[in-house]
Amino acid sequence: MDCCVIPLRHGGLSLVQTTDFFYPLVDDPYMMGRIACANVLSDLYAMGITECDNMLMLLSVSQKMNEKDRERVMPLIIQGFRDAAEEGGTSVTGGQTVINPWIIVGGVASVVCKPNDFIMPDGAVPGDVLVLTKPLGTQVAVNAHQWLDQSERWNKIKLVVTKEEVKEAYQEAMFSMATLNRTAAGLMHKFQAHAATDVTGFGLLGHANNLAAQQQNEVAFVIHNLPIIAKMAAISKACGNIFNLVQGTSAETSGGLLVCLPREQAARFCAEMKNHSSGPGGPGPAGGAWIIGIVEKGDRRARIIDKPRIIEVPPRGSQAANQDSISSSPAPSPNLS
Amino acid sequence: MDCCVIPLRHGGLSLVQTTDFFYPLVDDPYMMGRIACANVLSDLYAMGITECDNMLMLLSVSQKMNEKDRERVMPLIIQGFRDAAEEGGTSVTGGQTVINPWIIVGGVASVVCKPNDFIMPDGAVPGDVLVLTKPLGTQVAVNAHQWLDQSERWNKIKLVVTKEEVKEAYQEAMFSMATLNRTAAGLMHKFQAHAATDVTGFGLLGHANNLAAQQQNEVAFVIHNLPIIAKMAAISKACGNIFNLVQGTSAETSGGLLVCLPREQAARFCAEMKNHSSGPGGPGPAGGAWIIGIVEKGDRRARIIDKPRIIEVPPRGSQAANQDSISSSPAPSPNLS
Repeated sequence: MDCCVIPLRHGGLSLVQTTDFFYPLVDDPYMMGRIACANVLSDLYAMGITECDNMLMLLSVSQKMNEKDRERVMPLIIQGFRDAAEEGGTSVTGGQTVINPWIIVGGVASVVCKPNDFIMPDGAVPGDVLVLTKPLGTQVAVNAHQWLDQSERWNKIKLVVTKEEVKEAYQEAMFSMATLNRTAAGLMHKFQAHAATDVTGFGLLGHANNLAAQQQNEVAFVIHNLPIIAKMAAISKACGNIFNLVQGTSAETSGGLLVCLPREQAARFCAEMKNHSSGPGGPGPAGGAWIIGIVEKGDRRARIIDKPRIIEVPPRGSQAANQDSISSSPAPSPNLS
Repeated sequence: MDCCVIPLRHGGLSLVQTTDFFYPLVDDPYMMGRIACANVLSDLYAMGITECDNMLMLLSVSQKMNEKDRERVMPLIIQGFRDAAEEGGTSVTGGQTVINPWIIVGGVASVVCKPNDFIMPDGAVPGDVLVLTKPLGTQVAVNAHQWLDQSERWNKIKLVVTKEEVKEAYQEAMFSMATLNRTAAGLMHKFQAHAATDVTGFGLLGHANNLAAQQQNEVAFVIHNLPIIAKMAAISKACGNIFNLVQGTSAETSGGLLVCLPREQAARFCAEMKNHSSGPGGPGPAGGAWIIGIVEKGDRRARIIDKPRIIEVPPRGSQAANQDSISSSPAPSPNLS
């Protein structure tokens, strides 16, 4: 499970908590703080929990930074983290900071819940539909952005993507990672989700496999569609497929929720996600949700079909995003019906 | 405060939690795990909380370790942490591990409390007595132990201490750091403690000052006695006083509780601490508690008197410890009465 759930000695309550910490992956310290906070909270959201009682922040300051850089950078990270916590309706009341060779940023999220506040991630049934609430490809976008300054790397991908497209994809990835999965957590209750997880370091397929393995029923997850930040699939292919993006194992940071929903609820879940979608970058078609697969009878594993449909998700603010593109359509795709 | 205390939406309950992480300071990975856990829990114990609902472990594995060392060392750290958690009546149900240049070990401790379960650290009154539940000098002991192999350093202190004494002091420091402050937390309730904190990175005086600053009443803390692991004061002096040990600002790791007790309760608190004292090293006279000072009217600060009495605390298991030494006597010292 994404969180630990501890039954308490008091009136049927449970303590649900999670921790995560990692290293910076975007240049903007403020956005890095937001991403770290969104990433910590995401584990609660994956259990359908929309409230958080307390957050702690875990930080390390790099010993290699001079004092001036420290004083410029660290307060911005902290502010980003705090702002995202506030957007999540919670606040940061403690933590710990150490000196370290590398910068670390992370935190702890805790909430005391009644039984109905959370959805145990083990109730998928055959016939359910799989929905993903953020596009894939954050790792590819972050790496491609670094390659803008590395000609050897850049030469491998420049035939399939422009510098402008890489910059747009990086912005999109940054906003996507900084977006809380809180709306999705709320809608999980409204549309009777049967199970969910968040997509992070093991990639879509890794987390789908983990989720499938915990199901009470003998089910399998079959993924048909991969919503991916525009051009990231092409980059991944052009550079020798080192990310395994379309194989589903490219790491994501602060990725979306993968939600098992009753078939009749999935389209409405996606439609409401699209209406609600906002975040640090504001509402836009890149927010939303995509039906990506189905739940069948099976041996508690997940797989991606041969030649899955790649849904190119245009960065919010881009020309493509401002058209009423079918690529961000929340409707079930034909090959699922 | 040592913890954050979050009022919950449920029936007068509060979430109390704390986090701490740091770098290894002893050679023995198992003991290091125990020390890290004792250090995390100590913040709860300082509030008189004796139970913990859940712990998370925070770890980083050093990228500089080869696989064999990793597989030997990290499980021992984890086992030590888990064993100390079990001794604290709790367990570790989650956490996060990353790769880092340095090894990090730490954790999060959380508990959901009723109002009477914890003692807010702000109730000291003039006439109270200050008690410390572990001897000072862990930083000096750990450093002196490293200097056994550094002839330049060793030459500075070899006139005041033998190698055997340094090894004994190091063992004592290690056992002391690995000892939970849980007994003291329980006795805080029994003897109506008015406030407490644990002594860690800022040293005795630093934490005494923090505690004094939060008091509701206009009080000052005056420290007369310094219980110190035997020979550590002499080492600190011989090496040019770089630790500021008798000035009260030498960092401690997983130090004791500094407790403000009603004068009539303090001696009994100390006597019970001595009876209960145990830990990874078993019961011994080095466990216990010492009356170190008094609470006066004042401006919410702490100070150590000129020429405080140094109480040399013999390592448990040493010859001195096996005598009925007055140096570990829990009775109030004459200059306090």
